Order: sequence, then structure tokens, then C-alpha cells
Amino acid sequence: MKVAMTGAAGFLGQRFISRVLADPTLPTPNGPEAVEELRLFDVIRPALPAGADTAQEALTIVTQVGDITCADDLAQLLGDSVDVVIHLAAVVSSAAEADLDLGLRVNLDGTRMLLEACRGLTRPPMVIFASSVAAYGGSLPDVVTDDTALTPQSSYGAQKAIGEQLINDFSRRGLIDGRVLRLPTIAVRPGRPNAAASSFASSIIREPLQGEDAVLPVAEDLLLYLLSPRAVVRNMVHALGIPGSAFGTWRSVMLPGCTVSVGEMLSALARTGGSDVRSRVRHEPDSRIEAIVGSWPARFDTTRATALGFDGDGDIDAIVEAFLEDDCTAGIHQ
Amino acid sequence: MKVAMTGAAGFLGQRFISRVLADPTLPTPNGPEAVEELRLFDVIRPALPAGADTAQEALTIVTQVGDITCADDLAQLLGDSVDVVIHLAAVVSSAAEADLDLGLRVNLDGTRMLLEACRGLTRPPMVIFASSVAAYGGSLPDVVTDDTALTPQSSYGAQKAIGEQLINDFSRRGLIDGRVLRLPTIAVRPGRPNAAASSFASSIIREPLQGEDAVLPVAEDLLLYLLSPRAVVRNMVHALGIPGSAFGTWRSVMLPGCTVSVGEMLSALARTGGSDVRSRVRHEPDSRIEAIVGSWPARFDTTRATALGFDGDGDIDAIVEAFLEDDCTAGIHQ
Ligand SMILES: NC(=O)c1ccc[n+]([C@@H]2O[C@H](COP(=O)([O-])OP(=O)(O)OC[C@H]3O[C@@H](n4cnc5c(N)ncnc54)[C@H](O)[C@@H]3O)[C@@H](O)[C@H]2O)c1
Ligand SMILES: NC(=O)c1ccc[n+]([C@@H]2O[C@H](COP(=O)([O-])OP(=O)(O)OC[C@H]3O[C@@H](n4cnc5c(N)ncnc54)[C@H](O)[C@@H]3O)[C@@H](O)[C@H]2O)c1
Repeated sequence: MKVAMTGAAGFLGQRFISRVLADPTLPTPNGPEAVEELRLFDVIRPALPAGADTAQEALTIVTQVGDITCADDLAQLLGDSVDVVIHLAAVVSSAAEADLDLGLRVNLDGTRMLLEACRGLTRPPMVIFASSVAAYGGSLPDVVTDDTALTPQSSYGAQKAIGEQLINDFSRRGLIDGRVLRLPTIAVRPGRPNAAASSFASSIIREPLQGEDAVLPVAEDLLLYLLSPRAVVRNMVHALGIPGSAFGTWRSVMLPGCTVSVGEMLSALARTGGSDVRSRVRHEPDSRIEAIVGSWPARFDTTRATALGFDGDGDIDAIVEAFLEDDCTAGIHQ
Repeated sequence: MKVAMTGAAGFLGQRFISRVLADPTLPTPNGPEAVEELRLFDVIRPALPAGADTAQEALTIVTQVGDITCADDLAQLLGDSVDVVIHLAAVVSSAAEADLDLGLRVNLDGTRMLLEACRGLTRPPMVIFASSVAAYGGSLPDVVTDDTALTPQSSYGAQKAIGEQLINDFSRRGLIDGRVLRLPTIAVRPGRPNAAASSFASSIIREPLQGEDAVLPVAEDLLLYLLSPRAVVRNMVHALGIPGSAFGTWRSVMLPGCTVSVGEMLSALARTGGSDVRSRVRHEPDSRIEAIVGSWPARFDTTRATALGFDGDGDIDAIVEAFLEDDCTAGIHQ
């Protein structure tokens, strides 16, 4: 099995690569298959995450610096044949909002060019596309489903919604065998706070557990819809084994996250780390962040995703636990 | 007021032009304004419909042969400023299904390039975009609303859904002041049967009233959602007068059509033309056409459209009457 990945230098790409290096077998609709070739593509040279040296000899890893808006780069990436394309390259939300042209170029043109490149292959590849909860927006029902209209209130969300249409139409025409996973807010991310409006959702767990202070810019009753990095990768892997026909007439599915209030997150933090750890979070309201994050839906009916075998973390304690196991291996800093 | 129109040689464009020639005043959110300039753009030289010679002297009409996928042509069309862009140029359903590249080029790239060209203007123009009931598809609720997800089952529908995302995002960013009208099946169209799957919806009224036989390829209980050409133009004109803010967070609206079974259409034909006229329709089932047209939704809740002041024909008798008045002026051929 040959797997190509765009955006392989990014956070989720690196996590997925670690999974393949740890266990180079992936599901397919016809049963598990060994990955023989992993082609990693990004504008930044994709690093091999820790564990690369333990990889089996039967797995060839090729890294390529290239741009998804360049047809030649994509032709080189796909070669004559590839079984699976994991399309993660994207300009993410704040950058796409700050620079419309950049977002359109990478998120719209880049996705389209990747699909065009897939048409040239001898066999239609499976394509996994990472969409986002940000594709939803505007005036929404209390409980959002896969059948709720995508009326995004950001250019990033609009570009993801467009990518979904392309993946679906190319799949309907049999040019690819696409799957679109709409990702909830990913938490707990390792590393440092960043410019994303949702950055605090990781910070308020991550920093206190590591002995640092964190700022909470929103009210405690604000609801979030969360999925751990571990669960994202597990669901991406799961998607590879589902027969296309199981999706019916539409290939997009909202992954089952965990609806949780910020207050519940802080309670989970106290349960895991104790009250001293909990007290490292201080409230500094930021109405701009509250407005952005508050516009994202947080209650979903994911019956369809569950029927397709996707699953979330269960509860907020499991999400905190996943962070401790995967990224906070030095233990809790009391 | 300067108005530019793409696809001006097409059916709806010609109807809209006739309306402006008959009455060169159009609504705006600030009240009615006289049209001073009408710029007509199409790959085919747009004809001036009958009535052009009666136009008022104060109205300048410019025709331009150009392609919406050519930035220079669009720059010429828009000039330094334009108040309203009516974007009708499209590759329609059967052609977009037969040729994916053509549909993507005109319907996706063309719409995007038009929006890019609008960004260069001194003032954001109002842009009216004709979307379609074909943007809906797949597994749908019994009654479809503006909040139902667009899961089209044709490349034409996918490309219209993408155009909607672009119009909405550019509007949200204040680069244009867009309005998207999702059109029901248009009937009764004048002229001859064509290759469209919905062609029979016009034929079974038009041909018998003009003394010719018509073929009905579907069962009489099949439901359609119809709007007369007259009502489309009336609603396009109405859209120009609505303040952008009235649309809330989304600029797309399904126009209120008329839900009618084919059997009810034939009854209306008999009421208007008599039983001899009715007997000119013969049933020749065509499962391919039945499958395509049967997949389009026919029951809509258009409360939002109605609240915005859009309105349909009322009933099938009014649709037949509109055809007799607008396009069958020679009277009924008994
Ligand atoms: N809830 C959400 O909204 C959500 C959360 C996480 C991820 N996602 C999506 O999942 C995917 C991966 O997310 P991530 O967190 O790993 O993001 P990331 O920003 O860490 O990784 C994206 C990668 O794409 C690369 N890239 C950007 N432009 C490129 C181009 N033109 N050609 C090639 N590579 C390019 C970047 O260099 C980066 O390494 C993205 O598509 C993202 O939009 C969505
Ligand atoms: N229910 C529906 O689905 C429905 C019904 C009617 C119309 N519509 C939409 O309304 C619009 C007008 O419909 P119509 O019935 O008048 O269609 P039409 O086919 O009669 O007119 C379309 C016009 O666009 C022109 N055109 C095509 N490619 C072009 C290009 N690259 N550059 C410039 N012009 C180009 C064609 O020459 C044609 O004159 C279309 O956008 C159509 O998709 C939808």
C-alpha cells in the first residue's frame, strides 16, 4: 500500500506518521494492508517524528518539499499510482481570514489541483480530507447534524466547505474515493499557545499541568466541542477501512467530539492535578475570542458518524488523560 | 445606476433585459433608481430583445462579447465602477455533467474571477447570482429549507453550491453585496424541447397549447417545483431592493416555487385548453429522466424567502396563464 500525505510537516500529519511508524499496517475496505511506501509532502521539509528509526525495513519513506498549488510537484508526489492520499495541507483559520488570496490559493486551488492530479492516476485513490467544525456557522439549530447547511462565517470555513463539494463531486464521478472528516476543536494540543482563537482550550489544561499559568479569555459556561489528537488519528485510520458505499450519497461526516463547558474542563483539571494546579488558570475576559469561539456549534448529533464506526474520547477526563499519556510524559508538575 | 450582466444572451438574461427596456427603473435598498447604463456580456453577442427600439434615450446599452474566465474581458465589463452585477453566465446541468472541466472552468473559475474583478472596483457592487434547486440532492428531508445541507448529486449542483460559498464569503468580507437566488425548475419556457432532463415540464404545457403533441416521460404522480420565467425576473428585480442586512448571516435563498404533480399540470392544461388539447400529451416512460427529475426536492418551506418579500406564481393555473400572456400570444391552438 502506497500512502501520500500533504501537509506532512504539520501537527496532525506528524501524529499520523508516528502511528504508521509504530504499526505500519492500515485498514482498507478489503482488510488490513501493510504500508510499503509513505510519501511525505509539505512546503516545509517534513521531519520524521521520534520513532522513525524503529520503522520496519519494508517501509520506504520519501519526503518531498513541494507546494500543492504546483501541478508538477503534485505529479511527482503521486507518480504512477498511489492507494491513499491524506490531504492535510492547509492555510488554517486565522491566516485564511487575514489573507483571502492565500487561503483561496492553498485551500481552494490547492485542493482542486490535488484532485485534478488524482484523475491522472491509473486507479482512483482513496482521499481523506480534513474539514472543520468551522465549516458550520451563522444561525444554527441547537443540535447540529451532518444534514445542517454549511453557512460558515470565516473564509477558512468557506474554503473547507468548497473542498468538501469538490471531494464529494469527484467521488460521485468515481474519480477518487473520498472521505471528508469534519474535525472538532483539537485539544489538548502539545506545545505553546498560538494565535488561534481556540488556543486557550489547550492552554488551560496544558500549562497548569506543566507548572505554568494560563489565561482563560471566555466565560466558564461557554461550550466547546473537543477531540484529542489521539482520537483524530484513530478516526483518520478508521476512515481508510470503510467502504465508500457505506457513506451513501455524501462523503462528509462530523467526527464525534465531546461537548463540554469550560467550567467542566477546569473541574477535570482539578480532578487530575489537584486544586493548586487548577488555581494556575486566571480569568481575563477577551470579548473578541469569546465572540469567535462562541459562534462555533458545540452540540452535535453524530449518529451517522457512530454508525460508520467513528468514535470520540468519551469525556473530558479521557481527553486530559490522553494528553498526559501522549504529550506530558514527564508527569504532572504539582 | 450602471448594471452589468453576464450570460446576457441566455434565456433569463434576455427576459431581464426586456423588463429593463420596458421600465428602466430598478429598486435599490435606497429606493428606485433609473438605469443609465446596461452592459451586456456573453460569449455569444447578446441580442437586444424585441422592445429595444422603444427604450428611453437616457439608457445606454453596451454589448460585449467576452468570456467570464478571461480577466481582461471582465475588467472591460466592469470598468471603474458598476452598481449591480447580474451573474447568469453558466454551463447548465447536462453540459456540466458531460464535461467536468468545462463546468469547473465556467461555473467555478468564472464565478471566482468575476468576484475577483469586483474587488478592484472603487465601491463594492451588488451581485445577484442564479443558483439552482439542483444544489440540493441526495438524502433530503420531506420538506427542504434554506437550512438544509447542499449535498448535490450533479457537478452542476456542486459548482452552484461552490459559487454560493464564494458569494457569501465575499459578501461577509464586504467585498461585494451579494444575493443568491436558488431557482426552482423554470416552466413554462418558450421555444423547443431541449436536452435538459426537465424539458418535459415545459413541453407538456407548451406543445399542446400550440397544436403539437408532447411526450410525458415520467409518472403523473411525480412532483415538481416550478416557477414561471416572469416570476424569476420579478424576484431578481425584487432582490435588488433588499438591504443586505435583511439576509442575516447568509445570502442564499430558495425562491418560492409551486409544488405540483405532473397530473395536476395536465389537469390545468385541460382546464385552460380543453380535453382535445390535453389529449395531445402521451405517456412514454423514460426511467433515466424519471430518476434525475425524481431526485430533485419538490417540497420547500420558503418562509424566509416570503419574509424577504420574494413570491412565486401562486398555482399551476397562474403558471399556464403567464405562458399564454408572455409567450403564446397567438392564442391557444384548439
Ligand atoms: N477543528 C479544526 O478546524 C481543525 C483542527 C485541526 C486540523 N484541521 C485541519 O486538519 C489539517 C491538518 O491540521 P494541522 O493542525 O496539522 O495543521 P498544521 O498547520 O500544523 O499543518 C498544515 C501543514 O500544511 C502545510 N502547507 C501549507 N500550505 C501548503 C502548501 N501550499 N503546500 C504544501 N503544504 C502546505 C504547512 O506547512 C503545514 O505543515 C488541516 O487541513 C486543517 O485545516 C482542522
Ligand atoms: N432551476 C435551475 O437550475 C435554473 C433554471 C434556470 C436558470 N438557472 C441559472 O440561471 C442562469 C441563467 O439561466 P438561463 O436559463 O438563462 O441559461 P442559458 O443557458 O440560456 O444562458 C446562459 C448564458 O451564459 C453564457 N455563457 C456560458 N459560458 C460563458 C462564459 N464562459 N462567459 C460568458 N458567458 C457565458 C451562454 O452563452 C448563455 O447565453 C444560469 O446561471 C443558470 O444556471 C438555474
